[in-house]
Amino acid sequence: MNQQIQTPKGFRDFLPRQARARQFVATKVREIFERYGFEPLETPTIEYASILLGKYGEEADKLVFQFKDRGDRNLALRYDQTVPTARILAQYQNDLPKYFRRYQIQNVFRAEKPQKGRYREFTQCDIDVFGSTSPIADAEVIACTYFAFKNVGYPTIKVKINDRQILFSTLEKYSTPTVSVLSIIQTVDKLDKINEEGVIDELVNKGLQKIDATNALSAIQDATLTQNLTDIIAMTVRLGVPKEAILFTPSLARGLDYYTGMIYEMSVPEYTTGSLGGGGRYDNLINQLGGVNIPAVGIAFGFDRMVEAAESLNLIPNTTNAAVLVTVFDANTTNNALTVAKILRENGITTELYPSVDALDKQLKYADKNGCAKVIIQGPDEVAKNVVQIKDMKSRTSKIVTIEELIRELTQ
Amino acid sequence: MNQQIQTPKGFRDFLPRQARARQFVATKVREIFERYGFEPLETPTIEYASILLGKYGEEADKLVFQFKDRGDRNLALRYDQTVPTARILAQYQNDLPKYFRRYQIQNVFRAEKPQKGRYREFTQCDIDVFGSTSPIADAEVIACTYFAFKNVGYPTIKVKINDRQILFSTLEKYSTPTVSVLSIIQTVDKLDKINEEGVIDELVNKGLQKIDATNALSAIQDATLTQNLTDIIAMTVRLGVPKEAILFTPSLARGLDYYTGMIYEMSVPEYTTGSLGGGGRYDNLINQLGGVNIPAVGIAFGFDRMVEAAESLNLIPNTTNAAVLVTVFDANTTNNALTVAKILRENGITTELYPSVDALDKQLKYADKNGCAKVIIQGPDEVAKNVVQIKDMKSRTSKIVTIEELIRELTQ
Repeated sequence: MNQQIQTPKGFRDFLPRQARARQFVATKVREIFERYGFEPLETPTIEYASILLGKYGEEADKLVFQFKDRGDRNLALRYDQTVPTARILAQYQNDLPKYFRRYQIQNVFRAEKPQKGRYREFTQCDIDVFGSTSPIADAEVIACTYFAFKNVGYPTIKVKINDRQILFSTLEKYSTPTVSVLSIIQTVDKLDKINEEGVIDELVNKGLQKIDATNALSAIQDATLTQNLTDIIAMTVRLGVPKEAILFTPSLARGLDYYTGMIYEMSVPEYTTGSLGGGGRYDNLINQLGGVNIPAVGIAFGFDRMVEAAESLNLIPNTTNAAVLVTVFDANTTNNALTVAKILRENGITTELYPSVDALDKQLKYADKNGCAKVIIQGPDEVAKNVVQIKDMKSRTSKIVTIEELIRELTQ
Repeated sequence: MNQQIQTPKGFRDFLPRQARARQFVATKVREIFERYGFEPLETPTIEYASILLGKYGEEADKLVFQFKDRGDRNLALRYDQTVPTARILAQYQNDLPKYFRRYQIQNVFRAEKPQKGRYREFTQCDIDVFGSTSPIADAEVIACTYFAFKNVGYPTIKVKINDRQILFSTLEKYSTPTVSVLSIIQTVDKLDKINEEGVIDELVNKGLQKIDATNALSAIQDATLTQNLTDIIAMTVRLGVPKEAILFTPSLARGLDYYTGMIYEMSVPEYTTGSLGGGGRYDNLINQLGGVNIPAVGIAFGFDRMVEAAESLNLIPNTTNAAVLVTVFDANTTNNALTVAKILRENGITTELYPSVDALDKQLKYADKNGCAKVIIQGPDEVAKNVVQIKDMKSRTSKIVTIEELIRELTQ
């Protein structure tokens, strides 16, 4: 084989332990998405380049993976899920419901310089409600996000929330011909990371007077809820999200300039690497991207970080798929092993059948190495008595049980 | 937006109805894969081109999507799941269990001429047992396949089975310097499609004497089971597959030349478009591809066809995610609607909350259009009496129930 037996930089293999963790998180969030009436959607990995380019800004365009097919057509790999969804909304506008709530869990590709925690292929997981400007839609998206996190099992879940209108109306008056309000907002957004002093320094560096920088910061810290945000929070609480999980954070801006109203950010205090996702209302973007005037509110889950957080907080059940290993005692009892495996599986028990007739100690070593919790042995003595031996690999204890007792033990 | 608001030819969007059908089939087969101890595995969409090229044959190499990244590295899109898995087996040989059973459900990319039923991006779904030459492994793979199909709900499932050794030992003597045994096998493999006459004609066209062509065909039709195949079938039956589902088919060759032993093919007689997947034992391929000598047996499920068959046989539950729509009667009762939605979801009921305060008849029209089976209405009268109205959208009948009754009705 080629000497390069490796993945290109920035691309990852997910071996079973990691793949299971990813599937665990995906299954848990999907369960809630569906309970909230969000529908699955899939778009192709490859789009016409013209659909994607010019939508993400000049810098980002360079990060789109592009190539020509054999028919000389310019193609590009999925860079995010919003632009393809804007295409879907435009292309199928007559087929989709007026209020379209969809979820989408697919991989995206970015030709970024690979570095720790930044990959060239990673999973995006989005939910959005399209078509409604009502705060009910905002509340639905926030509540669904909260309960999706809850379903993964994170011990504490925090929702920082703000309204871009608060940022604009509070900070507009500090803008100058050289320092735009957007630029002020971008600096204020860093409050958590660089603290008050850092924010003031950065605003001064950008060109504000120190007094204005200080006043701008206190003004935003003292800002109060808008009627819109008050409604959204009240509705979110009505939908079951605990009041104390929602933190009004007037400095929160969520970077992206396309948000038009409510914005929010998810975090789990026990996991300190950073935010686990964020979103908000973006009523103009679909029009800009897809040419159809459809308001929207949604969130992008930080899927990879959610998996990392779930792993570091031991939320992933550490049963392998081979929790029970049925051994094959010898060639004469192979059929008995097959029958035991069959019965266990019929009873819904995840069962690996040792796929060879090896010496028993070799099979036990295999079980140990692969983290099998229980091993089933049925030699000629057990066959004669119509029982099996069940060996607990942790305690190294064995007992003899009937098949019925075995099933009871393994399903309890 | 660009005038090309469409996907490139050969690429597909999956709108909710289709995405749900795909997810249904994937979930059903994955459930059985895991019960059989198969572990999930993911490889990246993009590999070094050198990993993929030269592995599929000259013609297929042209169908690999290739491009250069900004660092001028030659990259390529996943073309199948076997070659990346061979890389995995070589790269992580010290980390993986000696007997490695994995499943993989990912998309692959082929720059083929798009035509009906042939796509440039489609889903492959594979299970394989690596490391074992025992017929137990063959039987495990066949039984897991059968029960995965069963779990999707197909009414009849047929497993055609053969052993490549039967083809070789029976047909070798009919080969000539110009007509290789492989060439004879390829023609014989078409028996189902082109009938006896067609097979004989094709063999004659290839250069066999008519008498030899006729004899070759009868010889393979009269061929009997090998000891190996007898063992595999007996073990498969022990694992619970009904005897009558397994059809010894000595003309079956499964095209691909890399199979070394047992081969099999899945079909559902009620779905006549063709085979729904096939596989077999391939003990030399991983060595050829990855340079590690690991025997293997496995199957590639025809995922897209399985979805098509499941749809055409009405196996996909046709509940949308919005089976229950909670309407918002007016601005004054919005909070009540939110509470009803919350309670239903807490009880595990898939619930869409109408995300706007529109006139009620508009909400009912929306429910109709989107196939919502039940609509919940709570106006001021119902609020006062602490009840809700549940409207069946099919029968157009309504009744007044308490929340407890509502939950009972919707969870039964």
